[in-house]
Amino acid sequence: MAKTKKPQRPKAETPKGFSDYFGADVTERKAMLDTIAKVYHAHGFDPLESAAVETVEALGKFLPDVDRPNEGVFAWQEDDGTDKPGDWLALRYDLTAPLARVFAQHRNDLPTPYRRYAMGPVWRNEKPGPGRFRQFYQCDADTVGTASVAADAEVCMMLADALEAVGIERGDYVIRINNRKVLDGILAKAAWDGDSDRAFVMRTLDKFDRLGESGVRDLLTGGREDDSGAYVLGIDSDQWQVDLAIDFLKARRDDAEGTCARLDEIVGDTSAGAEGVTELAQIANLCAAAGYGPDRIVIDPSVVRGLGYYTGPVFEAELTFEIKDEKGRPRQFGSVAGGGRYDDLVKRFTGQAVPATGISIGVDRLLAALRMKGQSEADATGPVVVTVMDRDRMADYQKMASDLRASGIRAEVYLGNPKNFGNQLKYADKRDSPVAIIQGSDEADRGIVQVKDLVLGAKIAETATLEEWKDQPAQFECDRADMVARVRAILDR
Amino acid sequence: MAKTKKPQRPKAETPKGFSDYFGADVTERKAMLDTIAKVYHAHGFDPLESAAVETVEALGKFLPDVDRPNEGVFAWQEDDGTDKPGDWLALRYDLTAPLARVFAQHRNDLPTPYRRYAMGPVWRNEKPGPGRFRQFYQCDADTVGTASVAADAEVCMMLADALEAVGIERGDYVIRINNRKVLDGILAKAAWDGDSDRAFVMRTLDKFDRLGESGVRDLLTGGREDDSGAYVLGIDSDQWQVDLAIDFLKARRDDAEGTCARLDEIVGDTSAGAEGVTELAQIANLCAAAGYGPDRIVIDPSVVRGLGYYTGPVFEAELTFEIKDEKGRPRQFGSVAGGGRYDDLVKRFTGQAVPATGISIGVDRLLAALRMKGQSEADATGPVVVTVMDRDRMADYQKMASDLRASGIRAEVYLGNPKNFGNQLKYADKRDSPVAIIQGSDEADRGIVQVKDLVLGAKIAETATLEEWKDQPAQFECDRADMVARVRAILDR
Repeated sequence: MAKTKKPQRPKAETPKGFSDYFGADVTERKAMLDTIAKVYHAHGFDPLESAAVETVEALGKFLPDVDRPNEGVFAWQEDDGTDKPGDWLALRYDLTAPLARVFAQHRNDLPTPYRRYAMGPVWRNEKPGPGRFRQFYQCDADTVGTASVAADAEVCMMLADALEAVGIERGDYVIRINNRKVLDGILAKAAWDGDSDRAFVMRTLDKFDRLGESGVRDLLTGGREDDSGAYVLGIDSDQWQVDLAIDFLKARRDDAEGTCARLDEIVGDTSAGAEGVTELAQIANLCAAAGYGPDRIVIDPSVVRGLGYYTGPVFEAELTFEIKDEKGRPRQFGSVAGGGRYDDLVKRFTGQAVPATGISIGVDRLLAALRMKGQSEADATGPVVVTVMDRDRMADYQKMASDLRASGIRAEVYLGNPKNFGNQLKYADKRDSPVAIIQGSDEADRGIVQVKDLVLGAKIAETATLEEWKDQPAQFECDRADMVARVRAILDR
Repeated sequence: MAKTKKPQRPKAETPKGFSDYFGADVTERKAMLDTIAKVYHAHGFDPLESAAVETVEALGKFLPDVDRPNEGVFAWQEDDGTDKPGDWLALRYDLTAPLARVFAQHRNDLPTPYRRYAMGPVWRNEKPGPGRFRQFYQCDADTVGTASVAADAEVCMMLADALEAVGIERGDYVIRINNRKVLDGILAKAAWDGDSDRAFVMRTLDKFDRLGESGVRDLLTGGREDDSGAYVLGIDSDQWQVDLAIDFLKARRDDAEGTCARLDEIVGDTSAGAEGVTELAQIANLCAAAGYGPDRIVIDPSVVRGLGYYTGPVFEAELTFEIKDEKGRPRQFGSVAGGGRYDDLVKRFTGQAVPATGISIGVDRLLAALRMKGQSEADATGPVVVTVMDRDRMADYQKMASDLRASGIRAEVYLGNPKNFGNQLKYADKRDSPVAIIQGSDEADRGIVQVKDLVLGAKIAETATLEEWKDQPAQFECDRADMVARVRAILDR
């Protein structure tokens, strides 16, 4: 017997590393982004929305996060049907590279300085992993066209405002500021040679939080075993070099004045270091004068961030409240935003130096933090479901839903097959509906409806005794004319 | 002399057919989408956000708009470094194809029927032209999993609500409904043979609005010259076929009852036609019972929309107010939304028929309409600019901006080089700032600020005589403590 070939059906799957977001996951993120946008906007930042697609040429490759060093872009070549090879296009991997292109392209029409905010998805062509997606949101604010440290101070203070606006309480976050110039100062002073050793030192300093003093000492000398058990070779620094690095990492004092004074002792005799310390002191002064003291904004020499990208101040916002890690051990929630000054991105296009500084909020991490704190703003209540007892009276049911909506109550008519009433209630349950409305022909004749309180019903089913049930029935009848008011009363409870 | 090679700089340009959106263009669109989302949400529709990227396999190619028949997708092949050929991925070209994939993938977890809304960019790889971009927004609402015409009626009424919510007044729009089944009825009855003739007839019927009866008659018989002067060959139909088509196109009467009765006379003796007329009558009845009469929703046999995509009712929302075309002639604004029932999209994945219906709003066209009507919701006012007279007192200026913001007034400190005060005022002008604040050391000593009313200032510069100027000075001094109140008074004016 001949085998009949099965029709080939496409697989119903997202591509690897991409995800679908439903219901409250969408509205919660939107509510958070709206709140942040309001803060940015109040500070005079203007919205900018550039396309998802840029030329590969314009994007270049200037990734700020050391966290994700190996990623590429999703790219393809234009084909206009002619023999001429088309441009290579790519999905943007962040919002800063497009900003540099936009400013270079429109600089004659834009105000200078140009304060802009942008929020939207970015794409990275990297190996997906648990919780690591190839499309994710960023939410940035940048000031282009001013070298003033007041711009750096402003974005840091605004970041504090944004975190508080979305519900992170003061005391639960801290914004740490460092300066690439003081890092350059320590590299110069300790005289590490060669780009690769210098990059290794930077990466090592960045691990101080996690590895502590002894881990850093090991890496700068003979090396150490990492978490996976592999041995990481060190760079055999001299003892005085290592001591200098540790002094630097531990230069943080109780207040910015103390930290800057200590940093000045360590790197103040290098030109980069001296300049960096001065800038840090200015930023700290501006923040303190505006009431953003060390409970919110601190100078911290152990902040490193992106290699070969930032050119001055660098920022990192951390949430300090404790969560449990996978193994149940307490740890701080960690970084949710970062940024810094990058003076060379626009220059790529124009040849002229255009100083710029900005911050980027890690939307998904901040959202996760808000959910943990129970601070998420979105309302996840389902709609009131008007059930269908009588197929011929759809118009009546629609009028009920419409009356509820006219009073600001989310409502819909059941549109599946109404035959099995149990399915209608199961549907309402799946929708997280607070209330179901029921009206058969008998009720219609009497001008009443049945109002079923599904939240109370679920509670009674779970916990209540028959006695309690009597006083608070989960279903009652009322005049059709009173329906909206009675539903409102349940929702307001 | 050797020529020095100029460094190659990337071009600061969007790829062809892509655009940047600034300031009010972004916030206006966002305000409109937020308003529409509220209407969709109130009707029980849940938000869904799928990724921009899908597998080409999942996307298939089911484009609903006949308007844009030749477009392709932006696609590329995955490369995981192995020899195995990777999946082809592509940017979504609409929001319906991803919905079909999402429903097929998650159908066991989703309620049935599943009402969802989605808004976001889609991408089409087609030749860009004036006003035709390769990335644009769509804003859709669909109900998946019910064959009930109540779902069709619901999305049409909801579309009316959405148009009114964003500011299109009743009387300025009409939602026209037809049914593919009555179109199938007329094709069967007139007995046009062959897919290509049938497709030609459908495209011709779709042009009735624009070409009128004689144009349609010409195309169905010998042919006609089109706008470009090229001659379009007809299909040599018989006179009785042409008369039938014209009868059909002109079947619209004053009310739905009359139109349905007339349609029944014309195609009621075909099985598809009879079914289609019954569905149209049911939809019209549901809409009328809910108060959506022929001033808002009409049955109109001349609506065609997408070939080989829709399977039942089709919808089209048109704005009826007059605008001037490029040549200054009055014409109606035209279509801003459309949709219909498509029962076969999910079946591609699962093999099981899953009925679905929905609407899609053309975001950019609706936004253009709102701008023409002066109905756009966003506030385009620039920030109050606190100017810098004294570089050492940045902290004071920041405090002023912060005080203004604390009262809900958008404000910023000038962060460019403060040396040239004229540049600061030019900057405020470019920002559309309503007010500038000025405080030199003299004013600071006296505890006052200068408040410069830039809106009034511009008006005076344009029109006022010296006499008027005296009573209403565009700049005045006030106590630093009164600054916020005085600025507020100007903004409230």
